[in-house]
Amino acid sequence: MAGIAIIGYGYWGPNLVRNFSTTAGAEVKWVVDMRPERLEIIKKQYPNIRVTANYDEALNDPAVTAVIVATPVQHHYPLAKKALEHGKHVLIEKPMTQSSAEAEELIAMSKAKGLVLMVDHTFLYTGAVRKMKDLIDSGEIGEIQYFDSTRINLGLFQPDINVLWDLAPHDISILFYLVPGKPVSVSATGISHTPNGLENVAYLTVNYDAQHMAHFSCSWSSPVKIRKMLIGGTKKMIVFDDVEPSEKVKIYDTGYSVKSDEEKRKLLIDYRVGDIYVPKLEQREALAGMAADFISAIEKGTTPVSDWNVGLEVVKVLEAAQESIKSKGKEIAIKF
Amino acid sequence: MAGIAIIGYGYWGPNLVRNFSTTAGAEVKWVVDMRPERLEIIKKQYPNIRVTANYDEALNDPAVTAVIVATPVQHHYPLAKKALEHGKHVLIEKPMTQSSAEAEELIAMSKAKGLVLMVDHTFLYTGAVRKMKDLIDSGEIGEIQYFDSTRINLGLFQPDINVLWDLAPHDISILFYLVPGKPVSVSATGISHTPNGLENVAYLTVNYDAQHMAHFSCSWSSPVKIRKMLIGGTKKMIVFDDVEPSEKVKIYDTGYSVKSDEEKRKLLIDYRVGDIYVPKLEQREALAGMAADFISAIEKGTTPVSDWNVGLEVVKVLEAAQESIKSKGKEIAIKF
Amino acid sequence: MAGIAIIGYGYWGPNLVRNFSTTAGAEVKWVVDMRPERLEIIKKQYPNIRVTANYDEALNDPAVTAVIVATPVQHHYPLAKKALEHGKHVLIEKPMTQSSAEAEELIAMSKAKGLVLMVDHTFLYTGAVRKMKDLIDSGEIGEIQYFDSTRINLGLFQPDINVLWDLAPHDISILFYLVPGKPVSVSATGISHTPNGLENVAYLTVNYDAQHMAHFSCSWSSPVKIRKMLIGGTKKMIVFDDVEPSEKVKIYDTGYSVKSDEEKRKLLIDYRVGDIYVPKLEQREALAGMAADFISAIEKGTTPVSDWNVGLEVVKVLEAAQESIKSKGKEIAIKF
Amino acid sequence: MAGIAIIGYGYWGPNLVRNFSTTAGAEVKWVVDMRPERLEIIKKQYPNIRVTANYDEALNDPAVTAVIVATPVQHHYPLAKKALEHGKHVLIEKPMTQSSAEAEELIAMSKAKGLVLMVDHTFLYTGAVRKMKDLIDSGEIGEIQYFDSTRINLGLFQPDINVLWDLAPHDISILFYLVPGKPVSVSATGISHTPNGLENVAYLTVNYDAQHMAHFSCSWSSPVKIRKMLIGGTKKMIVFDDVEPSEKVKIYDTGYSVKSDEEKRKLLIDYRVGDIYVPKLEQREALAGMAADFISAIEKGTTPVSDWNVGLEVVKVLEAAQESIKSKGKEIAIKF
Repeated sequence: MAGIAIIGYGYWGPNLVRNFSTTAGAEVKWVVDMRPERLEIIKKQYPNIRVTANYDEALNDPAVTAVIVATPVQHHYPLAKKALEHGKHVLIEKPMTQSSAEAEELIAMSKAKGLVLMVDHTFLYTGAVRKMKDLIDSGEIGEIQYFDSTRINLGLFQPDINVLWDLAPHDISILFYLVPGKPVSVSATGISHTPNGLENVAYLTVNYDAQHMAHFSCSWSSPVKIRKMLIGGTKKMIVFDDVEPSEKVKIYDTGYSVKSDEEKRKLLIDYRVGDIYVPKLEQREALAGMAADFISAIEKGTTPVSDWNVGLEVVKVLEAAQESIKSKGKEIAIKF
Repeated sequence: MAGIAIIGYGYWGPNLVRNFSTTAGAEVKWVVDMRPERLEIIKKQYPNIRVTANYDEALNDPAVTAVIVATPVQHHYPLAKKALEHGKHVLIEKPMTQSSAEAEELIAMSKAKGLVLMVDHTFLYTGAVRKMKDLIDSGEIGEIQYFDSTRINLGLFQPDINVLWDLAPHDISILFYLVPGKPVSVSATGISHTPNGLENVAYLTVNYDAQHMAHFSCSWSSPVKIRKMLIGGTKKMIVFDDVEPSEKVKIYDTGYSVKSDEEKRKLLIDYRVGDIYVPKLEQREALAGMAADFISAIEKGTTPVSDWNVGLEVVKVLEAAQESIKSKGKEIAIKF
Repeated sequence: MAGIAIIGYGYWGPNLVRNFSTTAGAEVKWVVDMRPERLEIIKKQYPNIRVTANYDEALNDPAVTAVIVATPVQHHYPLAKKALEHGKHVLIEKPMTQSSAEAEELIAMSKAKGLVLMVDHTFLYTGAVRKMKDLIDSGEIGEIQYFDSTRINLGLFQPDINVLWDLAPHDISILFYLVPGKPVSVSATGISHTPNGLENVAYLTVNYDAQHMAHFSCSWSSPVKIRKMLIGGTKKMIVFDDVEPSEKVKIYDTGYSVKSDEEKRKLLIDYRVGDIYVPKLEQREALAGMAADFISAIEKGTTPVSDWNVGLEVVKVLEAAQESIKSKGKEIAIKF
Repeated sequence: MAGIAIIGYGYWGPNLVRNFSTTAGAEVKWVVDMRPERLEIIKKQYPNIRVTANYDEALNDPAVTAVIVATPVQHHYPLAKKALEHGKHVLIEKPMTQSSAEAEELIAMSKAKGLVLMVDHTFLYTGAVRKMKDLIDSGEIGEIQYFDSTRINLGLFQPDINVLWDLAPHDISILFYLVPGKPVSVSATGISHTPNGLENVAYLTVNYDAQHMAHFSCSWSSPVKIRKMLIGGTKKMIVFDDVEPSEKVKIYDTGYSVKSDEEKRKLLIDYRVGDIYVPKLEQREALAGMAADFISAIEKGTTPVSDWNVGLEVVKVLEAAQESIKSKGKEIAIKF
């Protein structure tokens, strides 16, 4: 039985408590937060969970074997490091850390101590992403040619990170999970409308050696909520629309070859080339799958889907993107 | 009465003939095309229009006072130049020319000879763009903070120009028409999936000195057709969805200020902040408005909405974008 | 070669002229209309077509072998009758006549004289309806259990017929074409907001002996345009949304069996049960198919898809519906 | 402080417990259910709430001052009656009872004993319905001319009531709340695809003396989920689409007058006549408003929005609809 301490009870905390409370092999022992009013809430709803504003108190409890870091991102590295030093398995919310150096240090520690280190890229556990993974792995889509993701909505300006660090980890982790191969460089642009200079609208291109490119549009300043991903393959194309309630993933049996003028003209009035297939998706809550994956890694030594590799890769892309934005789109190489 | 010769009877030609045939003050005298089968079509439908494969024949007809160049883009410059040399007013399809040097030479010639030189950026004559122009000019939207345009669909690979030169002129001309001020630089990325190396997916960022940025996504390789523009102002935001049959332009009474965690949480379930207003748009065919504007410029000396300024500016942006794509997103300065 | 006279050059007339002009084996000889300004239009666009306000002139031309009646519905019967008397094949716009007695008299005449009598239910020639026909005939949908059609939009109040006679013929003809078996009775309700008492909103239920029912909602008074048909089978269900530009027909692999409370709860958050399939549809203009079918019936004696059977059945349903509306929904039997 | 006993902990029970637990002036004392496994759930989540399978135990607790009946509908009348006999205020889930006779007896009892009797038509407390009420009451919509509601989705066949009794109470209660005047008769049709003969697809017309009619489409057998209401007024029209996440209520500034053929033709390509306005709606959970309204009625004697009048009227319409369905649409008079 893994004894869990959850550090940070902000927006995501209640979802973590709820899901780990019902995960076989897990027991939430502690919730740590500096804000007494947040601890009050947990006390009422979960009288069996102990609460504290003192992280050490939880770390020193021998019943605690795993720590979940769900704080603002600047605290991820020190809190995770301390947990590893105390011999605890660690799950960190996305993005893993503020820099790849921090991430690599945590990875080295976890390896040295034989502890699980995992990053919560929840989207990898959704029915939609799993279905797309199956389709791509089966070869049905063909070789991937482009990956285009838009994640925009209104509000939620973060005080400490820009919109790419906030929203793009979802989409970059999906890119790494779905598409084989590693990118070689990035180019990014963005703009800030706030005094702190943190971009609230940003665009990111991720380049590969092969005939493949990825692009991400992120915004906190769109009046409409769009969460749409297009994945083009040599055989078929996928549209993943996460705002759509029931038809999230559509597979288009489509291709490029258009030759004569006559055909061009037809295409203008004909909106697509082949059939569309909309698969039924698994309905299980993604976070429950992530929680089970973390417990399985602890208990059985399995490799989690959303492991530290994905976490590190996402941070490397974000780090390079930040550098590129500052030089107005200049290509920045990434190494893996 | 302006006597019109239309050069090129491809995809757009029939629309030009139909609209100029019903424009007061215009009479279509000639259609020129190298393909006999295209000329056959026009002969059947419009027995009063003369046809030829020989451009000179039309140019030498004194009844011809204006020439419309509707050929592939590489022929725009030589054909337009020849028309100006013959003292004809000239309308060129978008994009104006293959380079800003070519465009500037044509502009200088037209000025020297006192002839009208105009570029057909048809979108500037749509009810949707005119309504947005009114809204922005009235101050209702506030200062523009971002402009984001997506124009993607399937097919229609052009053999001579990449997707930016094909699709972005629509959106860039709208940007210049709607938003005051001139950009200072661009950054662009793209990928080609064809042997000719012409990009079929491309992204373009246009930078301004002020707190404003524009971004364009263009693709011939999307299984779905999207034509969506988001324009964010300090007071309100506009969404222009050109695929939507009846509610193309929506104005969102919305803003950014979100402070407490509590408010953040609410926003997650509440998709927007204020009312939405969907204005009724004028239904007149845009091309008819463009045709009337060209004739008015010839007859009354008025300045057309879609004049050579817009044409040149669009070419300058595309030229710089091409340079940036080749260096993987590097910032390229533009001068106006 | 069939020589065609088109009687009535109103809203639908130009479409008929354009399509029959390009149909192999057909030649439009005459257009007849009482309004000189309508005849002027045809003269300009089609100088080879003769025009007249005098029906007899066209009927007496021996080159005319077929007549198309495209007038307001009250003139269908006398004009078609006269054409049959003159030995002409006849195509009538929908609805066929104002009463089943009139329709039956025309049918008897056409049989006696060996002339083609056909009704233009254009929808039967659309790619969407043909695809649904194939699916249902193949058994893939199973036994049909319900048919639900909504056809509503704004405007277009007809001065001589109510909304059911105007809009429902489309949907009723599709019902008869797609679903085997004949209805036994109807029940209808409606309301008129105009002094002439013609219903502008109406609802129609069509009963079958078997486990199957059809329902039609028609309105000229809806602020939104909806053209949606649901067809439920024992194996699968079809949604035909004619307003949708590219995904008009969707097939849902779905079923009913929901037993436990637990399952019920899941269904509330899960919007459907199986995969969806969106077939590519044929893009040919429906009216061209109808025109070719009429010419084929004349020249080769084939039975048209949209023959007088469908025309008569639609009129019988409408006639009974009208009687039911007047008695506020009372069941009215129909006989075939 | 009202002490609450909730009878029935099925699908809706958890929502009632959660909302009444946070309503000022209310304290949930008991939950009653015959199924031990349901009681187990409540014990874990709410250790302070007492549970029992014995209704009398809760009724005999003097701390209980109000009873909420949330069982299948056939138990509403006997359970509510017993509660009133014990001097408890009563809230009944919709539909109020199985017959108007039962409802009237409960009303008479509550009046005689001075107890609150209320029916939970939750929709009346949604931001959307409240906004529509304001708009209609202000005169902005004009006189109501039609009310058209579609509520269809897949699954959830009820074992004891047909689809009208299950789904239509929502829409009929909204009709009564929004539109002044009382109906005079109904006409309904439907079909059952199950051995128990309970209709799973049904249509209901509600007639008024005035120039107004209402129609309801209900189905458990639709592959798509539609919850759409059209309300036509002499000045404007409303579309309420409850499936739409952010633009639920739209007001169309629209009208009927279309006269010439030329105008008709324009309308065919122009989908609407005026501007559209999409108001921001209040986001409070509707059930919380209902709970507060019940407590206010108990403590302050206020008249609830969703009082027994609405409850009785809905049952009268359903009762008449059932009779009409059995006679295939025959008009059945209703009296209020």
